[in-house]
Formats: sequence, structure tokens, C-alpha cells
Amino acid sequence: MADASFSLLTGNSIETRLVRAGGVIFREGEQANELFVIKSGYVRIQVGNKTMADLAPDTIFGEMALIDNEPRSATATALTDVELVPVSEKQFLFLVSQTPHFALKVMRTLAQRLRTMNKGVY
Amino acid sequence: MADASFSLLTGNSIETRLVRAGGVIFREGEQANELFVIKSGYVRIQVGNKTMADLAPDTIFGEMALIDNEPRSATATALTDVELVPVSEKQFLFLVSQTPHFALKVMRTLAQRLRTMNKGVY
Repeated sequence: MADASFSLLTGNSIETRLVRAGGVIFREGEQANELFVIKSGYVRIQVGNKTMADLAPDTIFGEMALIDNEPRSATATALTDVELVPVSEKQFLFLVSQTPHFALKVMRTLAQRLRTMNKGVY
Repeated sequence: MADASFSLLTGNSIETRLVRAGGVIFREGEQANELFVIKSGYVRIQVGNKTMADLAPDTIFGEMALIDNEPRSATATALTDVELVPVSEKQFLFLVSQTPHFALKVMRTLAQRLRTMNKGVY
């Protein structure tokens, strides 16, 4: 599978945000101004009561609302204690414009989620 | 909603491909080396027997297999006579690297499809 790791964004010198297990990172319907890279721990993504994905370190989440300027499409909670690297909308647009590999990785993340969901329709 | 039109890629001087109503553009499981912009007509995207989307002019499809190098995740058929602009993998990577707006538009297309699918789980 194509590389979709964002480990380059979670270096030691970057400011992180800690969320304890069970804590809500964002809720469906909220306005958004940042996405997150998981530095350590696991994050659950839910729409209503349905679990859409459990995400591991070096993956991103929360990118959809930045991409299309709509409210959060899902709720994200910490499954374990998690360490997150927040990426602002401004930083996101800079990364997309300056580093094509970043843009492709974001696309791969979205494409993989669509494939996972497509498989659910059989 | 954020602009996700690809009309800039369907100018008059560009070579197009015509598919008659009912014709198959690609099938689920096939290897992929191009995506398409719809210049005129409507295209249906199906996974198995389920219709995932009916797409209008100035939208793209077939981008997922180029992004993650996996086989086609869905079947695309012409609902009406359609005129398509094929974009090769090489052209796609060039557009992503040289034009950040193109990358963002592809991301918006993927994000909108994920939102549409998320809504189906309630």
C-alpha cells in the first residue's frame, strides 16, 4: 500500500497536545480550524453511534473540515492517552502548496477511508 | 461549499474521449493508469450493485486508484452520452506538484464523497 505515514510531522521539537483516555478531541458539527497528527496513542472516529475507524500513531485526522470548510463530520475521542500534533489551517495550506508529497499523503488517507467504507456496502 | 470544479481542465483544445450512454468506462478491480474529468454528460459510479454517485460535468472520477496505486474501487458507466478528458498518472502527479489548487480540489472531491457516505450510516 502507498505510504500514508505522517511521522515527519511528529518530530521531537514540535509542540504537542495531550488528551487523556476517554477525552473528546472534537465533536461532530463543531467548527474546525486545525487537523491533528497522532504522535502516540489511539483515536476513535465516530459518526453518531457508529465507529468509523480506530487510528494509530503517524496517521492524521480532522483534515476533512479544513479541506472543505464544513463543520466536523465526525466525533474524535482518545481511546488511550494520546499525544497529538495540531496543524493549523494556515500550516496545512502551506504544506499542501510547498510539499506535493504531503498533499499526496492526505489524498491517500482520504482514498483509503473511502475504500474501507465502499467495502461496507456489500 | 468549497469550489471543486475542474472546468479548467476541459478547455476546447484538449483531446477528449466519447462514451455512448450505457457504455462502461472502467470496471471495479481493473488496473488503473488515468483519471477522468467529465466535460459533458453524466457518469454513474457503482460498487457491486449499489449506486454510490451520479456525477455531473466538471467533476473528476477515477482518481482513487491513481492516488493509492490499488485497482479500481468501483465501476463507472455513462448514464448519458459523455465526453471525458483523460488525465494520465504522470499528468496527475505534475498537476499536484505544480498547482496546489488542483491538489486541494482533489481533496475536496474526496472529502465530499466521504461526507456523503458518512451520512448513509445513520
